[in-house]
Amino acid sequence: MKSVPEAEKKTLTAPTFQTTDNLGKVTSRPGGSPPPDPEDDPGAPHFEQWPAQRSFSEVVMDKTMDTLGDLSLIARRTLRELPRSSRIRAQLRRMSNRGAGAEDTPLALKSDKPIILVLGSGWGAHSLIKVIDTDKFEVLCVSPRNHFIFTPMLPSSAVGTVEFRSLLEPIRIANPFVTYIEAECEVLDVKRKLALCSSTFAYENGRKPQFEVAYDAVVIAIGEQTATFGVPGVTEHCYFLKEISDAVGLRRRIGQCFELAALPGTPEEDRKRVLRFIVVGGGPTGVEFAGTLRDFVRGDLARKYPELMGDVEVVLLQSAQSILTQFSAGLQDRALETFRKTGVSVRTGVRVIAITQDQVVLEGGERLEYGVCVWSTGNAARPLVQSVAGAVPEQQEALQGRNPAAAKLAVDPFLRIAGVRDAIALGDCSRLTGAPLPATAQVAGQQGAYVARMINRGYRLGTGGLEKPFPARWKEKSAREEVEYFEKPFAFLSLGLMAYVGSDQAITQFEAGKASFSLAGYLSFLLWRSVYITKQVSTRNRILILFDWVKTRIFGRDLSIY
Amino acid sequence: MKSVPEAEKKTLTAPTFQTTDNLGKVTSRPGGSPPPDPEDDPGAPHFEQWPAQRSFSEVVMDKTMDTLGDLSLIARRTLRELPRSSRIRAQLRRMSNRGAGAEDTPLALKSDKPIILVLGSGWGAHSLIKVIDTDKFEVLCVSPRNHFIFTPMLPSSAVGTVEFRSLLEPIRIANPFVTYIEAECEVLDVKRKLALCSSTFAYENGRKPQFEVAYDAVVIAIGEQTATFGVPGVTEHCYFLKEISDAVGLRRRIGQCFELAALPGTPEEDRKRVLRFIVVGGGPTGVEFAGTLRDFVRGDLARKYPELMGDVEVVLLQSAQSILTQFSAGLQDRALETFRKTGVSVRTGVRVIAITQDQVVLEGGERLEYGVCVWSTGNAARPLVQSVAGAVPEQQEALQGRNPAAAKLAVDPFLRIAGVRDAIALGDCSRLTGAPLPATAQVAGQQGAYVARMINRGYRLGTGGLEKPFPARWKEKSAREEVEYFEKPFAFLSLGLMAYVGSDQAITQFEAGKASFSLAGYLSFLLWRSVYITKQVSTRNRILILFDWVKTRIFGRDLSIY
Repeated sequence: MKSVPEAEKKTLTAPTFQTTDNLGKVTSRPGGSPPPDPEDDPGAPHFEQWPAQRSFSEVVMDKTMDTLGDLSLIARRTLRELPRSSRIRAQLRRMSNRGAGAEDTPLALKSDKPIILVLGSGWGAHSLIKVIDTDKFEVLCVSPRNHFIFTPMLPSSAVGTVEFRSLLEPIRIANPFVTYIEAECEVLDVKRKLALCSSTFAYENGRKPQFEVAYDAVVIAIGEQTATFGVPGVTEHCYFLKEISDAVGLRRRIGQCFELAALPGTPEEDRKRVLRFIVVGGGPTGVEFAGTLRDFVRGDLARKYPELMGDVEVVLLQSAQSILTQFSAGLQDRALETFRKTGVSVRTGVRVIAITQDQVVLEGGERLEYGVCVWSTGNAARPLVQSVAGAVPEQQEALQGRNPAAAKLAVDPFLRIAGVRDAIALGDCSRLTGAPLPATAQVAGQQGAYVARMINRGYRLGTGGLEKPFPARWKEKSAREEVEYFEKPFAFLSLGLMAYVGSDQAITQFEAGKASFSLAGYLSFLLWRSVYITKQVSTRNRILILFDWVKTRIFGRDLSIY
Repeated sequence: MKSVPEAEKKTLTAPTFQTTDNLGKVTSRPGGSPPPDPEDDPGAPHFEQWPAQRSFSEVVMDKTMDTLGDLSLIARRTLRELPRSSRIRAQLRRMSNRGAGAEDTPLALKSDKPIILVLGSGWGAHSLIKVIDTDKFEVLCVSPRNHFIFTPMLPSSAVGTVEFRSLLEPIRIANPFVTYIEAECEVLDVKRKLALCSSTFAYENGRKPQFEVAYDAVVIAIGEQTATFGVPGVTEHCYFLKEISDAVGLRRRIGQCFELAALPGTPEEDRKRVLRFIVVGGGPTGVEFAGTLRDFVRGDLARKYPELMGDVEVVLLQSAQSILTQFSAGLQDRALETFRKTGVSVRTGVRVIAITQDQVVLEGGERLEYGVCVWSTGNAARPLVQSVAGAVPEQQEALQGRNPAAAKLAVDPFLRIAGVRDAIALGDCSRLTGAPLPATAQVAGQQGAYVARMINRGYRLGTGGLEKPFPARWKEKSAREEVEYFEKPFAFLSLGLMAYVGSDQAITQFEAGKASFSLAGYLSFLLWRSVYITKQVSTRNRILILFDWVKTRIFGRDLSIY
């Protein structure tokens, strides 16, 4: 583990959050015995076999009961009056009143609750934050983004079907008892249980404050970044679909392309080029964006720029031989058929080798001119994941000589990071040892809630690894110091796959235990909309999205550029 | 008039819109006589006295009848099916199919209707575009902004009370039969009746297309830009409140300031600085922003950052001895009282002499540190207005040796630019000779509609100036070639002044003829909201604003930063 270099540490004037080292205290004996450490017990249970065999109905029953439990916890939290100031916040303020450089020793943040440090604010982190019991734990969320994004609707927002803010929930709203800090964790010292963080925003003079956080347990849920696969020009010239700012920029540039093409005297070659929209990547994001963009062109732009319609082209480039490879062959064909009808050109089996300021260069030398190029081909490890994976021996072993950009944190069935103490990784930045799961929002969301419930029940995590003992706690309602082990590894319950392909058509694939069904067309689109409304993280978001849909249906999408 | 330099013209490969020279044809004799030129007739009427004396009730009656006429025109337009492609647009496309550099002579845009070139998309231009009769005229709108903004609500949008897009109406929606071109007019050759325009947006390689437009009549409604009064640092460090992008940036930076202040270990002096919001300028925009920001702090931020509330400061700096000097002394006091109660510090009689990256420097040497500084002190002439005003002798005379930054286009009572043929100026960039009007949205909006009606009736403008003959047309329903003159100079009907001062309090001042009344407080706030909803330019905007208000009331303002 790369720890903070000595020279760097000396310059840190910002205070440190001090670990309380009382994780497990939640169920500790009144006598004050130390919390149980699973590794102290040679007879502690560990995995004999993995993946574990659990029946589908058992998993469903578990999830249902857990969800009911979560709901009651959230209801209790909501009913309680939001205190004007939580204790930790008041302390933060007192600490800082000492001024910079008053003393050189790190400041201690005292809390009588164990400190859970959550890195990230995506699907995994957000679902954990919603479910975690902030009465028992002091939860600090550190993320460069102060809101959760309902990512499956980013393509819709990039053309204005829904507004940007309708997709967001600020972390401070998701759970008002969590302390949110707008910063990025740059170095994680897993041995000393310290996170070195840097502010996302700078003061006017460019200074970005730094600080350290000591934790009792850490949850790494930072997701991944867009993979460029070393193709030159991608970062400089392509639009991504990961953050709201990506969608904002994309929406602006699409509008600009139409305005440029509509200028008097624009030669045909310029017009055709600036109105060619290329999407690289045939996964759900790329396909949904291509379909939605085609809707925007046919529905709104055709009425305002009728003279340009002959020049607009939406092209989807895919390196594999088909698109939406997660879906069955029948559904893939349905998607392709819809694209043929609506006028999205799909080219499969093509590899992009470079992007210039106005051309996509394909293997074989073909060059496609473009106005906007959207890059949606896959993800790569963030630097923090690479550094943790590179420094822990168990992680290096699991990496099996893969490219560091493909690194994910190997986790055991309790989602504990292999070889690291009191550390969880979940979502896209993690890989479940022995039984890898798809890198989807669904998996991350279920994992976040799973971890929160395990922590809520007072289990001490211990060190991660398949051969390591299970998380442990003191047995409740027992007079003796009796250790109890957590016996439920994470089980993913697939709720199916959906993708919108434009023109009010969607495809749905659902598997439950041994049963499975597929649906395509308008009915599937209605299902897609119902599911997306249901899966919104709050009533506020549901109302906003519904309003946006009605607004778009009645008034069309807004064409203002700013 | 600065015409396009020869060298520059040679490099123009873009086509030119050719003037049709058939303005006035709208009411021309069937026999094909040329349109009447008011200047041909030595006995044509001209102003003997100005301002003209018209009674208040006469003006009200006129406006009412005109408005009914406008409504019927808009209704007819809306009922007609929007053609898939207007003739001029199809031509634009054919023209451009010739490719760049195919021929060197300017391309001619043929239209059997007179070409009205409208520069701008603000209050004046938008109101003209709504009312102008596109059956009789080919209207080209050239503006760097493809939408109208309901500017009085920009302060609300900068804190999230209403969303940005709720304030906007795309010009293409305002009147679908107007041809909108996203560009800025850089040189206006008023002798040759040519406008040289540059695209707002660039291609990926940085190229911005240029083109020329020949017109039969031009309307300059480009407003003004923010005045810095030569104070150093304003452009680099201050936020303005003129465009949507200003409000977007301001909303983002306010959020960032709170996140910076909330970081662990932020020293007290940094926190106090970054949370001091300084508004320079005590006019309606500055006052509304200060009041709305205070609402945002007390209503939303106080719940999410309770520990920071002691450090937040909103300061309003005003060079005059009072704020809102357009209002009566009683209302000024009410505004000051509300600010005292809600905690906005007002400092009058202070002059700002410089802005550094984190300090506002006052005359006398005092320095105020700030996190965000909003500059809202007044307006200055845009370069195009300066160049027209500087080149026309009648305009230089009217300028009377004023600073060119304070230049406005002197217009006669028909809003014709003095000394220029077939040219109108309206709104903030114009000054009515002999009877200057306030630079408000109300004035510009009424002027836009006034000009559209005059043009709709087929009057040929002729040259502007108090001593010049009135606009003329062929008399309708007359067998002989009889000339008729336009007899109604522009009359401003003041609908009163309003300003929101925060905390659900507003002030209203209304004058009708000799009657006048004032209102302050909650009732005035309700009136403010009703008026703002009524004055929205479309049903769509009304619904969006109402929804935003309800959303803010129920869920609060969104704190997500992107």
